[in-house]
Amino acid sequence: MIADYSERLIVQEVAPRDGLQIETTWVETADKIALIDALSLAGFSRIEAGSFVSPKAIPALRDGEAVFTKMRRQTGVIYVALVPNLKGAERALAVGADELNLVMSASETHNRANMRMNGEQSLTAFADVAALTSGGRTSLNGTVATAFGCPFEGTIADSRVLALIERYLALGVNGITLADTTGMANPRQVFQLVSHVLELLPSAKLTLHFHNTRGLGLANVLAAYEAGARRFDAALGGLGGCPFAPGASGNICSEDLVNLCAEIGIPTGIDLERLIALSRTLPALLGHEVAGQVAKAGRNCDLHPAPA
Amino acid sequence: MIADYSERLIVQEVAPRDGLQIETTWVETADKIALIDALSLAGFSRIEAGSFVSPKAIPALRDGEAVFTKMRRQTGVIYVALVPNLKGAERALAVGADELNLVMSASETHNRANMRMNGEQSLTAFADVAALTSGGRTSLNGTVATAFGCPFEGTIADSRVLALIERYLALGVNGITLADTTGMANPRQVFQLVSHVLELLPSAKLTLHFHNTRGLGLANVLAAYEAGARRFDAALGGLGGCPFAPGASGNICSEDLVNLCAEIGIPTGIDLERLIALSRTLPALLGHEVAGQVAKAGRNCDLHPAPA
Repeated sequence: MIADYSERLIVQEVAPRDGLQIETTWVETADKIALIDALSLAGFSRIEAGSFVSPKAIPALRDGEAVFTKMRRQTGVIYVALVPNLKGAERALAVGADELNLVMSASETHNRANMRMNGEQSLTAFADVAALTSGGRTSLNGTVATAFGCPFEGTIADSRVLALIERYLALGVNGITLADTTGMANPRQVFQLVSHVLELLPSAKLTLHFHNTRGLGLANVLAAYEAGARRFDAALGGLGGCPFAPGASGNICSEDLVNLCAEIGIPTGIDLERLIALSRTLPALLGHEVAGQVAKAGRNCDLHPAPA
Repeated sequence: MIADYSERLIVQEVAPRDGLQIETTWVETADKIALIDALSLAGFSRIEAGSFVSPKAIPALRDGEAVFTKMRRQTGVIYVALVPNLKGAERALAVGADELNLVMSASETHNRANMRMNGEQSLTAFADVAALTSGGRTSLNGTVATAFGCPFEGTIADSRVLALIERYLALGVNGITLADTTGMANPRQVFQLVSHVLELLPSAKLTLHFHNTRGLGLANVLAAYEAGARRFDAALGGLGGCPFAPGASGNICSEDLVNLCAEIGIPTGIDLERLIALSRTLPALLGHEVAGQVAKAGRNCDLHPAPA
């Protein structure tokens, strides 16, 4: 807690991808685009805008091409696409994604369940994607899912995570994301693992992706920041979730994270008031309440009149 | 984050008081007693079991006498009663409360709104209570509400909080609670204020009472622990709340806090599995979902079978 909070924290907004992918209500393409456009104007420098996976696997995001083609790109904003394989990468490149995000799990069991491949097969597929983007303008990010624990296997050894980072780096990725896919991380573990990982790559290349499944999302952000991490995924309203925790929170909430940063003095460049207003449109869009707290409570500076 | 996590953290369970007081559904006296009895058996060493305020002010807790008389006290557990004044203190003493908790706000506006008195009037009333308990077996705790911010006044100066602590100590109280009544605290502020306060009194006498209104409750606990605090209020299921934040969380959630401690190695003496089972009975008791996350998600060690 004697950290210097003056260094900027970069929030990558992932609601359009990791948030919407599990929604059962279909969100119209125009509404997705309006959401992304509003996020672009709120000050995010990175937005994960969609995924190019099989429409059968994730029907909620089957309109990735239309979204990437019609959204209004803002200068200085990097628009990321999640891709599972070469075919997805080709689709994402065709519509001008600025960055491709690859995902595999540190847990073999989770990788097989989610990707229907073992880890080596994932890495082989990723080598094809790396060959496609090599020398081009599109950057490549490698995500290690279940990096802090697996709902099937339990504890994941740090050595396994570090080995996968090395494999990603050998493929030539420009960045690495460590994902706490089902919200099992704790602040002590986060501080230790991030400290180790930052011996392998600079903080500008590391993203932390936390879920708030057990209420520890923002505590984990602070622990990672104190260990030197500066880039974090978050989702408007705290969208997203995990099939094993019905009713529990999903991704850490963008406006709750930006509020934390504003309160303790970490610059983010994001307009909190605008973000809160945007989050308040989600229940009508999705047909259910969302987890984010600051959109319900308001900012500290939103004072109330004293009772008469 | 280089904290030593080996020192015990004491959780004072406040759901029977701070949780139930805002519930609109009447909870039968027998159900309140069953809840307190179950909490006693889960390993809590301190339980705020009720309040002795006017039944008109808080009808949900109008059965304080019956609760304190019929609950099954466990050896080693301290049963606390909130009292607003001499009359409340006499009622609480008559049914053998082990500790009386006094509450006033650091914010004059909040004190007038909540207690219908100014701060000096509150302190005068507390002097009567202190005279009543002086030399007896019943200990006295003084709570400073809105210690980290006020929904009417905004920022509260640390100097105001420190001055009220001095006034409480002059009355002879045995402990002090700093309450973030409407969830405005942030970890940086908490670390600083707790560090200052622990120059005035030992950590065994200081309790932190956080609300999770803006998602920072557990991050604030860690900041306070790192500053030396060891005693925290929390409510089963995260019950409680604030009239200015409809839909937002209330108190920090006991089972979420105990889970955090279990994951990072801080001993609490509380049976997490039993606590989760108890929290899962709340929706049926209260007629609504509750905020706690771990009761929905399970512990990290509650693994799931891998999909076929």
